[in-house]
Amino acid sequence: MKKYIKVDEWKIIEEGFDPKNHLVSESLFSLGNGHMGQRANFEETYSGESLQGSYMAGVYYPDKTRVGWWKIGYPEYFAKVINSTNWIGLRLLFDGEELDLARVHVKDFTRILNMKEGYLERNFIALFSGGREVEVNAIRFLSIARPEIGVISYSIKPLNFSGNLKIILYLDGDVRNQDANYDEKFWVENHRTIDTAEAILTMRTKKLDFYLTSAMRCKIIQGNQPLSLSPLLHSKEKYLAYEFNLPMIQGERTSIEKYVANVTSRDYPVDSLENVGRLRVQEAFGIGYSSLLEEQREAWAKKWQDSDIVIEGDSEAQQGIRFNIFQLHQTYTGDDPRLNIGPKGFTGEKYGGSTYWDTEAYCLPFYLSTADSHIARNLLLYRYNHLEKAKENARKLGFKKGALYPMVTMNGEECHNEWEITFEEIHRNGAIAYAIYNYVHYTGDNAYLPQYGLEVLIEISRFWEERIQYTEHKGYVILGVTGPNEYENNVNNNWYTNRIAAWTLQYTLETLEFVRKEYPERYEEMMEKTKLREEETEKWKEMIEKMYYPVDENRGIFLQQDGFLDKELKTVDQLDPKERPINQHWSWDRILRSCYIKQADVLQGLFFLGDQYDLETKRRNFDFYEPMTVHESSLSPCVHSILASELGYKEKAYELYLRTARLDLENYNHDTEDGLHITSMAGTWMSVVMGFGGLRVRNGRLVLNPYTPDHWKGFSFKILFRGSRLKVTVTKEKVLLRNETETPADLLIFGNEYTIGAQGELEIALQQRTKAEI
Amino acid sequence: MKKYIKVDEWKIIEEGFDPKNHLVSESLFSLGNGHMGQRANFEETYSGESLQGSYMAGVYYPDKTRVGWWKIGYPEYFAKVINSTNWIGLRLLFDGEELDLARVHVKDFTRILNMKEGYLERNFIALFSGGREVEVNAIRFLSIARPEIGVISYSIKPLNFSGNLKIILYLDGDVRNQDANYDEKFWVENHRTIDTAEAILTMRTKKLDFYLTSAMRCKIIQGNQPLSLSPLLHSKEKYLAYEFNLPMIQGERTSIEKYVANVTSRDYPVDSLENVGRLRVQEAFGIGYSSLLEEQREAWAKKWQDSDIVIEGDSEAQQGIRFNIFQLHQTYTGDDPRLNIGPKGFTGEKYGGSTYWDTEAYCLPFYLSTADSHIARNLLLYRYNHLEKAKENARKLGFKKGALYPMVTMNGEECHNEWEITFEEIHRNGAIAYAIYNYVHYTGDNAYLPQYGLEVLIEISRFWEERIQYTEHKGYVILGVTGPNEYENNVNNNWYTNRIAAWTLQYTLETLEFVRKEYPERYEEMMEKTKLREEETEKWKEMIEKMYYPVDENRGIFLQQDGFLDKELKTVDQLDPKERPINQHWSWDRILRSCYIKQADVLQGLFFLGDQYDLETKRRNFDFYEPMTVHESSLSPCVHSILASELGYKEKAYELYLRTARLDLENYNHDTEDGLHITSMAGTWMSVVMGFGGLRVRNGRLVLNPYTPDHWKGFSFKILFRGSRLKVTVTKEKVLLRNETETPADLLIFGNEYTIGAQGELEIALQQRTKAEI
Repeated sequence: MKKYIKVDEWKIIEEGFDPKNHLVSESLFSLGNGHMGQRANFEETYSGESLQGSYMAGVYYPDKTRVGWWKIGYPEYFAKVINSTNWIGLRLLFDGEELDLARVHVKDFTRILNMKEGYLERNFIALFSGGREVEVNAIRFLSIARPEIGVISYSIKPLNFSGNLKIILYLDGDVRNQDANYDEKFWVENHRTIDTAEAILTMRTKKLDFYLTSAMRCKIIQGNQPLSLSPLLHSKEKYLAYEFNLPMIQGERTSIEKYVANVTSRDYPVDSLENVGRLRVQEAFGIGYSSLLEEQREAWAKKWQDSDIVIEGDSEAQQGIRFNIFQLHQTYTGDDPRLNIGPKGFTGEKYGGSTYWDTEAYCLPFYLSTADSHIARNLLLYRYNHLEKAKENARKLGFKKGALYPMVTMNGEECHNEWEITFEEIHRNGAIAYAIYNYVHYTGDNAYLPQYGLEVLIEISRFWEERIQYTEHKGYVILGVTGPNEYENNVNNNWYTNRIAAWTLQYTLETLEFVRKEYPERYEEMMEKTKLREEETEKWKEMIEKMYYPVDENRGIFLQQDGFLDKELKTVDQLDPKERPINQHWSWDRILRSCYIKQADVLQGLFFLGDQYDLETKRRNFDFYEPMTVHESSLSPCVHSILASELGYKEKAYELYLRTARLDLENYNHDTEDGLHITSMAGTWMSVVMGFGGLRVRNGRLVLNPYTPDHWKGFSFKILFRGSRLKVTVTKEKVLLRNETETPADLLIFGNEYTIGAQGELEIALQQRTKAEI
Repeated sequence: MKKYIKVDEWKIIEEGFDPKNHLVSESLFSLGNGHMGQRANFEETYSGESLQGSYMAGVYYPDKTRVGWWKIGYPEYFAKVINSTNWIGLRLLFDGEELDLARVHVKDFTRILNMKEGYLERNFIALFSGGREVEVNAIRFLSIARPEIGVISYSIKPLNFSGNLKIILYLDGDVRNQDANYDEKFWVENHRTIDTAEAILTMRTKKLDFYLTSAMRCKIIQGNQPLSLSPLLHSKEKYLAYEFNLPMIQGERTSIEKYVANVTSRDYPVDSLENVGRLRVQEAFGIGYSSLLEEQREAWAKKWQDSDIVIEGDSEAQQGIRFNIFQLHQTYTGDDPRLNIGPKGFTGEKYGGSTYWDTEAYCLPFYLSTADSHIARNLLLYRYNHLEKAKENARKLGFKKGALYPMVTMNGEECHNEWEITFEEIHRNGAIAYAIYNYVHYTGDNAYLPQYGLEVLIEISRFWEERIQYTEHKGYVILGVTGPNEYENNVNNNWYTNRIAAWTLQYTLETLEFVRKEYPERYEEMMEKTKLREEETEKWKEMIEKMYYPVDENRGIFLQQDGFLDKELKTVDQLDPKERPINQHWSWDRILRSCYIKQADVLQGLFFLGDQYDLETKRRNFDFYEPMTVHESSLSPCVHSILASELGYKEKAYELYLRTARLDLENYNHDTEDGLHITSMAGTWMSVVMGFGGLRVRNGRLVLNPYTPDHWKGFSFKILFRGSRLKVTVTKEKVLLRNETETPADLLIFGNEYTIGAQGELEIALQQRTKAEI
């Protein structure tokens, strides 16, 4: 596929219509507002290839598991965020001829995602038979201010003819998921009602009884005057529509405004849904398109104010990072602790919109630094609220105690069904513990520990205790796991897993001690609730002490797993480029016995626990593993880029940054049509702020060690930290810090301590980082 | 489930009808004749639970793969022997009331599988409303002499009433497989024709275009007189039937004879199928039921003459071994080299009737010793004919040369789709090489090597060459495999795999040398064809020499794989009986990291290559591994039993023999309803003949080391060996050998040499075996 997205610092632009790009564009130009998401499907009929996608956050379906060979412990279903009522749809017939971009000729086509203001726009001229031309302009957005509201303004102008126009505006609940395991439709109709003012369609999922009510109102405007037309009403199973028939005059614009409220039983009692939907759409309709769009601009301006990254001298990089930040904001707003961040957000069906360890390992830092801390806290509470399910999950796998969080989940139950992942990629439990540490460490919200964190830590530690085995000649070992590098399965003593397990035990012991001292009453409550015994904590101490870690003494590196050195050690540049990505060319056994690494594994540990390892250790491991890493997970380059920055490998850091920043815009992995790589977008943010910016938190203090990549003139980013908002601007020569709040901020920059007072500024010349500063 | 099969030395008997046993009985009482198989479904309507199964050997369907997560290299389909036209079906209505054993009361029910004569019989009295009683006797068989013919004789007698009888005899092609991946029906109708003499239904598979023509004739007899009734003809899509309406008189028997010929496009041109079917059924009809049954008796007498095992003093064991031998003969006759032996034969749908390494590893010895050598040869030719497919299979997995035979196949293409099996259980390639050795070694048919064997050996060796890797500190290693013990996956240096790989290289080199010397012309041809280069054979020599084998020097044992000693070593008796079989109670990761072994692995190698290891080595390994073995493969106990016999562990040998001999009759694995464990039945035969009988072949000579298990008075078996047939009778005191042929036989018994002349006899006192004799 050719690169076809135009470079612009605030917009994603497609010029000219090529159906071959359409599936990718449907992903790239997706809209979302945390409550719902919508792929960039055309509003009008399109008979070409398309992946229809309207998604409601948290409305999912337990799709019956499909598996070749069942294994004990596999889940019964895979929870999927599902394609819901098509609320954007309309049909336009010009003298009976339907507008369908797969059938008419199209010219002057542009599709623009306005990231600054949060809307999607299309402009084109459609050429009908007999040379009749119609100019179309379509704008839509999902309101940030009113998350249940979607608005479309669709205007047409016949350029060289007059005639009859038929407009049909519909709600269509007869939709399906392309990835349904057994071609099942997930929705049945619950109720529908239509009058000349409002059409209200309520659908219900076949299982779990989620209800979605879509309430539609519309307005037709000609020559700036709303017409008072009496539409024909269409009502059939799962479908409601208004039909308007009107004359159109050459050169005169007809505008259609469609307002839809999508409300669900997640938020309201079922029997009130119709009323709430009616109310919401009436409000929106009353406010009107222009004012709603103005609200939208303001809401996005606020988001950008807290989280924008500005890159000087590299428009592509600028566009890339803004696209990432934009999509992250569209996916998750943090207002609802029942929600989380799916790997594809609401931009496609793949991975079902469920939660992975991506959230804790890659997304949390973005929200910590760019949003109010209650948002990151809600991400943590999501797991806290699933603790009982995580215990059940451990029981299902035969563990007598402790909690094993699922690999993939919607409601806390495991959804994935590959034994090497579901049962063996248990390091995820460590990431969930680490996120607690990360959150508390960043925010200083120590009270989270007694209230929620400790209980989760105890149950995770109990899992480790039971899962870790003792062998005479090695000490405590962990057999049969898959590490973060999923290109090795069922290995023994994956260094990262052993390390994060021991770290969790250690952090749990520290937290126990902290809570015992600082919150003695709560401590007693927790001891009562968890029945934690001293034998358990004693055992944890022994396990920490005698944990076995595979190492290569000669190279001075940690070994990814016991058998790693039996492999033929080759570097990525020895691969035939025609065979890359290897996961699309090699059979699984070949991948498994090769040394090639999908994503950071040992290096993930050195990143998470960066303050425990010196720079030379990091360098030796990076130098050993990075050349074998194929980065075939979108989550891989960011961690490597951050470490490369830390090690002073500036070119490498920049190269890896580029792979992540424009991953979808360039469709590097040839899979953007499935949806966007939302969780890896947070990794891109990390590459800039933690990589080039060198952001860390040490002992409750911000640490910065910024530098400007050679390809840039400079860059700036903002971070929220314990009440202060800092704007950090980095040029080739200096770093400029501006405290935009009244709260003073203490920092360590290039190893020196500074305090920036309320609304204060600070300018420091760039310095090389030294070992001691890391 | 209670034990419900009555003990009888020649029959399998079920007394009393219990629907709960019916699915198991449908498997146990299955009929087959190599060309077709038929589960013991009732002829008459049965509305209770049933697994309908009529199978035609070699007629299969490529059922689209079902898999949760696709991996490169997975096959597109799983080839399944499919449920075909129901040709046994009939309906009986007594005064309008249908005979259906799920609805009427049943008394005096017996179901008998007559193994001596090869037919299935049922007798019962059905009680209809108003106390009306009908006595039923039904016999059916699949002709050994005429493999396309199935015959049913079904007779009824109203005991206490007269009335009207409606008989409907049908062919029904509207059948499905219960295990179809997507509930698809595999057959469409091709053509049907019916007149008062014959009904002929031709079905075609939706894919691959297999045609099955079923031609039916029938006869109704009352009072020993065939009636000349003009039946009503029924014809609808996929269905043909004759309907007879006749009076029945109290106490008078009505007999129905149904003759069906099932002919397929595997054997005849499509356009001749109807004619062939008509001809075959006319022949059979002309010969008549009684004479056909007499043919059947004779054919089975011949089979038993060559292969019977007689056990004195243990009727259960006698019944068990005969059941196994009977089912093996029903499954595979060896006349068609396109066919092979499915793990369930034609007794169920599970495993699809495809070919596994079971054939080479477990079934070959039975056919070598009990049937003409062309039959074993046909089993080998099956693989020879698939050589090109095996090369393709290796290419699909990225190998540049060599052949990898599939794990599961129908036509030479791989069908299985679990990466840890499909891609990693590569030891199967070794079993296919070993079978060549085994066959040539047993039969002395050295000419097989230049003609067929060598080429297969070269291509398998080439595969090993590419698959084996070199590492500095260990030498040649094989990473990422699954051994015969499938309870370990993706391990490094599975001893059995390394050993069988090196053995294959060695045997290939020896065979090359043999062919070069003995068949120089053919050698040149093969060199030309295979382009074998000296670098390759040199490399093989180096690999044999420097192959790495994991061992535990302290225990003096071979290690199942590199990491085996990291496991917690426990014995089976430490398992909670409630958790057995572990594969029905434990999640896969738990199984994998446990030490528990599914089936012989290291011990499989010590069995295959028994002449290369001394008794003490075998003992140490047996003593180490057997206590950890859960025998959750039906193929496991036999190898252990044979080794136990060799080691003098008589009680153990007997205990393990019992597990295999009556596996299905006792339904030990709770899965007999899925079908019988056909391939493991050959293992049972091995337990007796190679275990208790101590049969081996060394340097072209038969070796026997028999003993009688304590629980038996004695036993006898027959073996064909290079033209002679020996009957070996073992008592508590002595072994009696009788040469039933004109060909003298050389033997080594208890280490002493003997020759038994034409029709000669030999009697020897039993002796303890000594080390030197093994």
